[in-house]
Amino acid sequence: MARVNPNYSKLQAGYLFPEIGKRVRAFAAENPSAKIIRLGIGDVVLPLGTPIIEALKAAAEELAHKETFRGYGPEQGYDFLLNAIAGHYREHGASVDPDEIFVSDGSKCDTANIQEIFAADSTVAVTDPVYPVYVDTNVMAGRTGGIDAQGRYEGLRYLPTTAENGFDPPLPASRVDLVYLCSPNNPTGAVMSRQSLGRWVSWARENGAVILFDAAYEAFIREPDLPHSIYEIPGAREVAIEFRSFSKTAGFTGTRCAYLVVPKTLKASDASGNQVALHGLWGRRHTTKFNGVSYPIQRAAAAVFSPAGQEAVKASIDLYMENARVIREGLSRAGYTVYGGQNAPYVWLKVPGGLSSWQFFDRLLREAHVVGTPGSGFGACGEGYFRLSAFGFPENVEEAVARIASGLPASP
Amino acid sequence: MARVNPNYSKLQAGYLFPEIGKRVRAFAAENPSAKIIRLGIGDVVLPLGTPIIEALKAAAEELAHKETFRGYGPEQGYDFLLNAIAGHYREHGASVDPDEIFVSDGSKCDTANIQEIFAADSTVAVTDPVYPVYVDTNVMAGRTGGIDAQGRYEGLRYLPTTAENGFDPPLPASRVDLVYLCSPNNPTGAVMSRQSLGRWVSWARENGAVILFDAAYEAFIREPDLPHSIYEIPGAREVAIEFRSFSKTAGFTGTRCAYLVVPKTLKASDASGNQVALHGLWGRRHTTKFNGVSYPIQRAAAAVFSPAGQEAVKASIDLYMENARVIREGLSRAGYTVYGGQNAPYVWLKVPGGLSSWQFFDRLLREAHVVGTPGSGFGACGEGYFRLSAFGFPENVEEAVARIASGLPASP
Repeated sequence: MARVNPNYSKLQAGYLFPEIGKRVRAFAAENPSAKIIRLGIGDVVLPLGTPIIEALKAAAEELAHKETFRGYGPEQGYDFLLNAIAGHYREHGASVDPDEIFVSDGSKCDTANIQEIFAADSTVAVTDPVYPVYVDTNVMAGRTGGIDAQGRYEGLRYLPTTAENGFDPPLPASRVDLVYLCSPNNPTGAVMSRQSLGRWVSWARENGAVILFDAAYEAFIREPDLPHSIYEIPGAREVAIEFRSFSKTAGFTGTRCAYLVVPKTLKASDASGNQVALHGLWGRRHTTKFNGVSYPIQRAAAAVFSPAGQEAVKASIDLYMENARVIREGLSRAGYTVYGGQNAPYVWLKVPGGLSSWQFFDRLLREAHVVGTPGSGFGACGEGYFRLSAFGFPENVEEAVARIASGLPASP
Repeated sequence: MARVNPNYSKLQAGYLFPEIGKRVRAFAAENPSAKIIRLGIGDVVLPLGTPIIEALKAAAEELAHKETFRGYGPEQGYDFLLNAIAGHYREHGASVDPDEIFVSDGSKCDTANIQEIFAADSTVAVTDPVYPVYVDTNVMAGRTGGIDAQGRYEGLRYLPTTAENGFDPPLPASRVDLVYLCSPNNPTGAVMSRQSLGRWVSWARENGAVILFDAAYEAFIREPDLPHSIYEIPGAREVAIEFRSFSKTAGFTGTRCAYLVVPKTLKASDASGNQVALHGLWGRRHTTKFNGVSYPIQRAAAAVFSPAGQEAVKASIDLYMENARVIREGLSRAGYTVYGGQNAPYVWLKVPGGLSSWQFFDRLLREAHVVGTPGSGFGACGEGYFRLSAFGFPENVEEAVARIASGLPASP
């Protein structure tokens, strides 16, 4: 009989968000009048800006006429979008060539797929807490052993990022080939400083490691001297792949567009010890397994970079970041210890009263009718923490904070 | 230093379509006045029908308002689309539940990704000639050895489908775990009969094999008793995964939408010999590495199944199939031996005069300014054959056929 990939059986059964969904549905069924406010899954709520919608519709209209119809496009993305992205990098002081960019339908896909171009026995490091996709896709690919009681996979290197080290990922104590970094961080909301990233780039150059840098939330950075791109750090073009997305930046979670950058200067070793450019390998993977992003969606994405598009996007981000401020300050006043939320759309709070993350989840749901995300769902070091997302309508965010402050104060 | 996936170095350097592009560009540069007609890459040319465009625009407008905005959707696809697809299957006499369907952005991705859920040491059979993606993705996953002079990978089982066996794939002579079948076939244009598919389903049931059935071209079937879906064959729900696409059917090559079906009754064995439902495994893969198809695109795809959408799609397919008839009959009259093109948008012709496929490609380009696809690009058994696509405007197709008939007759 045909046999399945044995690595799938190592995966933890209940993925975080389905479990949250189950508990929320059960609560809602028992309490039909409860007005539940969802600050759990990080999904945007604001509509797309007019310039983006207009570009989407205009491209749809092009598909209606034989003179302007488009069939297969270039798998890497249309030049109009690649050039707009490269221009955006330039404006922010990072140098990326258009043909180093690969447009895709999501950073989830990209961060999931990137591991395919590396050797099966590569050693992989992730932060803890961590976006689960980095871990699960390496489990599926057979780069780990089984899972322990804490939810950690044998063979993966975990880098604890906690309040004790200021949520700044420590360098690995032993040799690793690949490391996933996410800044601004999901879930902690921490942003790596120029100095911290510089330390990582130096480490990667000295150790021949590759940094997989997830910058999906870069647009939420407010402080002017925090780096938006790892390519702002000298030497990063030889050691880093960067992932970016329109999802949170421009409200594309349902519209789907993202991109990654593989600099042509980034190399790894083949089986004979020769240096191979990863750009060509990823290009082969991308063109063999992907057929490009929908043309109208690429037009919508390109409109994000127009002056009017940038204005629309900025207005949305400002609103979400005001939400983040309301959460941070409101919970601080209610006695909570809070992190993040200043350059990221996530507030990461210390669960009060010695509760576990899931115990706090249940209390918050029952007593305040607010949904958040248990920190333990992101890894062992997330236990005792909790994530609240700033993606919501201001009136809901304010009400959620008020309910928590009155019903669940941290220091009563 | 980080190491790359060593299997990528086994891949043939020049992928078929880039090589074609290169030769065509070189010819065009030297002959700027030549009016080149492209019947090579199988890309549609007709615009999308009005009901599809209207659905796309209406969904875009929904994203412009907070009341109707959509963020993350279900990764598997929205119910409105899953139900429409299941209804379409029912109309054609195959039983598929909506939750057995996974909507994706392309059959290329789906047929590329499906191998991930199977054991790394699975034995894989493909037909020869074959759609290269089935082969390349198994090479990348390490299921093959190196490539031989004929372009065949060690460890893959090739099933010759040639004029001698009527392009009907023969059953494997020895045990295999997975087999890729494509009907209507790309590139030969042959369609598997009910009897042939029945033989395959019986074989798979007896041997515990899984059939990966690519039905991306089912909409081009004209003869009423040819099966559109493998699920029309009794017993197929226990042995087959089916891939379908809106690309060729509905003109979505640039718009991007497809789906696959994993019946809940389809099982394979885990490492301990227990039977595992592939539906759950694929569901895990799909939700971990993919975030769903863009909402407006799903609305456009659903509109394909409306009465007006079906009418629009039928008009396009009728036009392409009339092209196929013109190619078939015109080349037959010019002395060519032609196959396919009756229930598929591809005509597969025997290269005349003992030329190789690439020699014929070059002659056709030079002397008739027509671009086709060398059969050898699809595998060793494709040598001496040539593919012409029926995707084109009728006037171009007619002119191409006239040029070939006058400039390159097969029996002068």
